[in-house]
Amino acid sequence: MKNASPIDIAWMRRAVELAARGVGSTHPNPVVGCVITGRDGHPVGEGFHAYPGGPHAEVEALRMAGDRARGGTAYVTLEPCNHTGRTGPCSDALIAAGIARVVYAVPDPNKQAAGGAEKLQAKNIRVEQGVLQDEAEAVNHVWLHSVRQGRPFVTWKFATTLDGRSAAKDRSSKWITGPLARADVHKKRAECDAIAVGTQTVLTDDPELTVRDEQDRPAARQPLRVVVGDREIPLTAKVRNDRAETLILPTHDPAEVLRQLDDHQIRHLWLEGGPTLAAAFLRAGWVDQIVAYVAPALLGSGFSAIGDLGAESIDHLKRFNLADVTRLGDDVRLTLTPLGGK
Amino acid sequence: MKNASPIDIAWMRRAVELAARGVGSTHPNPVVGCVITGRDGHPVGEGFHAYPGGPHAEVEALRMAGDRARGGTAYVTLEPCNHTGRTGPCSDALIAAGIARVVYAVPDPNKQAAGGAEKLQAKNIRVEQGVLQDEAEAVNHVWLHSVRQGRPFVTWKFATTLDGRSAAKDRSSKWITGPLARADVHKKRAECDAIAVGTQTVLTDDPELTVRDEQDRPAARQPLRVVVGDREIPLTAKVRNDRAETLILPTHDPAEVLRQLDDHQIRHLWLEGGPTLAAAFLRAGWVDQIVAYVAPALLGSGFSAIGDLGAESIDHLKRFNLADVTRLGDDVRLTLTPLGGK
Repeated sequence: MKNASPIDIAWMRRAVELAARGVGSTHPNPVVGCVITGRDGHPVGEGFHAYPGGPHAEVEALRMAGDRARGGTAYVTLEPCNHTGRTGPCSDALIAAGIARVVYAVPDPNKQAAGGAEKLQAKNIRVEQGVLQDEAEAVNHVWLHSVRQGRPFVTWKFATTLDGRSAAKDRSSKWITGPLARADVHKKRAECDAIAVGTQTVLTDDPELTVRDEQDRPAARQPLRVVVGDREIPLTAKVRNDRAETLILPTHDPAEVLRQLDDHQIRHLWLEGGPTLAAAFLRAGWVDQIVAYVAPALLGSGFSAIGDLGAESIDHLKRFNLADVTRLGDDVRLTLTPLGGK
Repeated sequence: MKNASPIDIAWMRRAVELAARGVGSTHPNPVVGCVITGRDGHPVGEGFHAYPGGPHAEVEALRMAGDRARGGTAYVTLEPCNHTGRTGPCSDALIAAGIARVVYAVPDPNKQAAGGAEKLQAKNIRVEQGVLQDEAEAVNHVWLHSVRQGRPFVTWKFATTLDGRSAAKDRSSKWITGPLARADVHKKRAECDAIAVGTQTVLTDDPELTVRDEQDRPAARQPLRVVVGDREIPLTAKVRNDRAETLILPTHDPAEVLRQLDDHQIRHLWLEGGPTLAAAFLRAGWVDQIVAYVAPALLGSGFSAIGDLGAESIDHLKRFNLADVTRLGDDVRLTLTPLGGK
């Protein structure tokens, strides 16, 4: 919104901060933050959406505000929903509370839930959109990408030596990176709602694909484990244990994988490999983020993290935007995003 | 030195700063800085060694001090030389100037030049050693390493994609990294006194192996170009042009390469590849520093920067210390040093 007042910007910034607290735990829902100011402009309530099935941000904030919400303003990072899911529509709750004005940052791209703004306006509530939209988009960027594209946001993760080897000649790969890098993987896995590997990886490494905390205890909420490919997975494979749910997809087609995961309402897929699966996603243009852990080490032989991409000469080099470089102990994490993308 | 006075430390720190100005331009000589304080303790002269054949740091500082040096103290980062080379011995110059006390940081490891401290003491000059020795060693570390080991300090440089490819299938490699990384290579090449490649690299890329400045003009001082291997180099190859001197070494043995370069008084070798030559140096344990330029890009096929190192499993991973990580435009420079080394 052009010419937003400093007061509106300040409260929306607070709402975005609140929304950020939900990052990684609200899938398949968006993160949302809400601040309510009373008739006199003082803050009377705030809230955020913390987990699916939990109260929406607006409902939390209204609960805190109570009667003081009447005649006040609600600042919400995302258009208030008009959808009865596990909780009732937030637009109705705002109307019932007697809110006089609603300021929201990002329109709801979800057809099922949209229409909240219109309903509020029909009840003579002043509605304004666009305050701090960029910041509010950024905090919700995985969810918005997923809903707008109609498929999960895909992060491809790999660990590699400086000479691009992810496993030695004999396929051994434990451990290329150090404990800080590995702990970081668990933190980032925890923010996704599915972890995928190819059947070759399951047969070679027998990974459990669960999220563990810093004390190596399994996390309470586990992403869906996804195994892609048509080789037989032994009944004793760790991905078949009861620590998390597992989906076995006997296909090689990334489009099919994404379609099935979308049906399961997966918003953020953490793709761990191997090289064939990663190459198929890259060739299809369906990798939205690359997280590479690079160890200061050389192998000189062995297996690359990525299979053939069809590059015949340097002109076919697939370039990315370097979004972040972070040192993690003895290793370096590079985060790449598509060129020209958000 | 234990219990150095704050005054001695302060003047030695200034001498180290002065020494640093010579880094990269004094080969085959060390970098040296000198500060002279007069009888009353006030600074009266300072100097550093700037290029081979140019005045030594002590001589520069004495020249500036003139008569005010009499009865004063000389702070020198390296033991004053006792050697008549292109210039006379600094020990004699300090004696002639009437210096009463000499404080130096690092003993001269060069047998030809050492003995300066003894000669000064024989003339009843008070001599103290060891003030800020670590800092003075650090600024001179390439030269000290070379003299102590009896061979050049070796930096292996390579540019690579994130999946470890330094050239595509068809051997094309221009350009994996961006302009800032390439400019950095020229800056670092300029600090070395020799640049080596294998014959395969000359035949494939026809590099000129010269140092160019930011306006793409050739630098005044050019490192020696070294071509290693026994394939024929065409008379029209750029390494044969007159922009710099070239040494062709028809051998595959890194020990022989280093021996010949030591005969040529080379202190810092910048090794650019290819993979076979780099692997031979690494296997012999003669790479003292690795400078890798990593582009946020993938090839999925092509050639690695490094040949076979004999690793059969992950237990044979060659690990290094991650000394530095620096972003250069869209690329990342990683600097590695041997584990346990300085």
